[in-house]
Amino acid sequence: MKEKRTEISELGEFGLIDHLNENIKLRHPSTIKGVGDDAAILDKGDFVQVISTDLLLEGVHFDMSYTPLQHLGFKAVAVNVSDIAAMNAIPKQITVSVGLSNRFSVEAVDALYAGVNAAAEHYNVDIIGGDTTSSRAGLVISITVLGEVEKGKEVLRSGAKDKDIICATGDLGGALMGLQVLEREKEVFMADPKMQPQLEKYAYVTGRQLRPDARMDIIHELRDLNVVPTSMIDISDGLASELFHICKQSGVGVRIYEDKLPIDKQTYDSAVEFGLDPITCVLNGGEDYELLFTIKQEDFDKLEKHPDVHFIGHVTKSEEGKLMVTKSQTAVELKAQGWKHF
Amino acid sequence: MKEKRTEISELGEFGLIDHLNENIKLRHPSTIKGVGDDAAILDKGDFVQVISTDLLLEGVHFDMSYTPLQHLGFKAVAVNVSDIAAMNAIPKQITVSVGLSNRFSVEAVDALYAGVNAAAEHYNVDIIGGDTTSSRAGLVISITVLGEVEKGKEVLRSGAKDKDIICATGDLGGALMGLQVLEREKEVFMADPKMQPQLEKYAYVTGRQLRPDARMDIIHELRDLNVVPTSMIDISDGLASELFHICKQSGVGVRIYEDKLPIDKQTYDSAVEFGLDPITCVLNGGEDYELLFTIKQEDFDKLEKHPDVHFIGHVTKSEEGKLMVTKSQTAVELKAQGWKHF
Repeated sequence: MKEKRTEISELGEFGLIDHLNENIKLRHPSTIKGVGDDAAILDKGDFVQVISTDLLLEGVHFDMSYTPLQHLGFKAVAVNVSDIAAMNAIPKQITVSVGLSNRFSVEAVDALYAGVNAAAEHYNVDIIGGDTTSSRAGLVISITVLGEVEKGKEVLRSGAKDKDIICATGDLGGALMGLQVLEREKEVFMADPKMQPQLEKYAYVTGRQLRPDARMDIIHELRDLNVVPTSMIDISDGLASELFHICKQSGVGVRIYEDKLPIDKQTYDSAVEFGLDPITCVLNGGEDYELLFTIKQEDFDKLEKHPDVHFIGHVTKSEEGKLMVTKSQTAVELKAQGWKHF
Repeated sequence: MKEKRTEISELGEFGLIDHLNENIKLRHPSTIKGVGDDAAILDKGDFVQVISTDLLLEGVHFDMSYTPLQHLGFKAVAVNVSDIAAMNAIPKQITVSVGLSNRFSVEAVDALYAGVNAAAEHYNVDIIGGDTTSSRAGLVISITVLGEVEKGKEVLRSGAKDKDIICATGDLGGALMGLQVLEREKEVFMADPKMQPQLEKYAYVTGRQLRPDARMDIIHELRDLNVVPTSMIDISDGLASELFHICKQSGVGVRIYEDKLPIDKQTYDSAVEFGLDPITCVLNGGEDYELLFTIKQEDFDKLEKHPDVHFIGHVTKSEEGKLMVTKSQTAVELKAQGWKHF
């Protein structure tokens, strides 16, 4: 009898994660929340501790042929800090583990760690440990971040309520277009190594891809303005996918407006140049590491004049579905294409 | 001008880690200890939190051709819990990240997680998060463990004092001999796939390699006996290497006795069969995940009758060096060969 073999691709990334999480039992009352949000939550008295971890693999999450090591070190920390931001928490400590193949020199490792250290300084976190080992198969980076927030101020994906206002920070789709540009220039270079990459006019979008910044500035400003979002998530897999997470976990629907979606001019122009629909890039482009959150209507005044917070729609009842109102005033159903690595 | 290129092998694993840690600055007063021990230590009021992380890579830390996935999942958790034990702390939560290549089926992932879940139950820890991603290059497992201990009861590598008694748990060298056996049987199988591996008579040593158990039992017993070791480390790189860590960080010397070193009969017999010196296996064999600790002389009575704690020597002044007294009563200098992955 042949053993059953189910391919991971049959489940997909989210399906596999759901499948693995089915069997998890929580044993400690101090574990307030395990898997299922941007970070886990532990009870530490007056504060809760939030914990998140990311595993970054060469050839899957980054391409060494166009990724400067210093930027990669910074980004590896930033994407983890972004998960802590998404809990409305402040990062405090990180562990940094790396697997290095022998094609790495000490100078290359130093460049990687220069980026890690710059990010640790930028986000005011302590590097408290890690593991350094050789790798037979490319660069591996695993970072775990610990953060803290006053108990009751932590924000989950599950708190959005009907009529809340949906906010997105910064602009979206840029990191995806940066990736497109970098991939194209790589192909040009591989076809003819004498060709130099043309990146000047794409500086903003390539910067979005190579060196994203977690929006801790927004978390500090929300605190100063005394606004606690009702739900929050960071935009790592694309706006539509993150909206779906909030809808699923809050049991709500959403209505967003195409003409409210924030897009940078360079992102827009690059998308057109590449024959892509700019709005699709905004909805499904990954790795922007902006924040998506919902606020009560009464908090609108406090954020109304914020130059970098955009009000893209509102929360609805679950049965109203997940809709985008286009510029021609048609309501279309949102699709979460997400960011699939499998 | 050519850029300088320094090979990692010039520094070695410990050299590279020291080099990278030179630039680390701690910013938060709640970070009591960062890198440099089995785990980091954070101030959480009446308790301290300890954190450790390990990165395990296929082809470096494990060989899929003879490692059952369920054992691998268990071991990945156990080696992390062992670091928490070495701080005299109790593990509470873990995060588990895995990178999976597409040759993995869902059934294979389930087997890996069956081991992870069995270990979570065995060590009474909650799985609170992780990251699941595809890998272009073999299986990657990254685990971070969080533990807790009453403030003041945490045990560092740095507290050993002259005349303290040196204790080692269990027996040593078995995991190394298990690895030798498994590697030999793999070669036999590769030369002639019709040959079946002969593992029955090596069940103990192969078990030590494939499914080690962190000594949380000892930590609970020390607590019950009201013994707080003066220093402690887990034996992952070999007894000699761990003794060197304690000597360096405590500023002391050691004198151990060959005839006191704990070795199992099967380990001894396998070493002889392989033409290896059994005592070298005990001193330099890695991955036993036993505990090495020092106690004050006044605590000796409490542990004297413990069947699984062995008194292998005593701490001396730094200038007396690191010595082993052989069975022929000669004092020889210890060498820390350690376990080099680079």
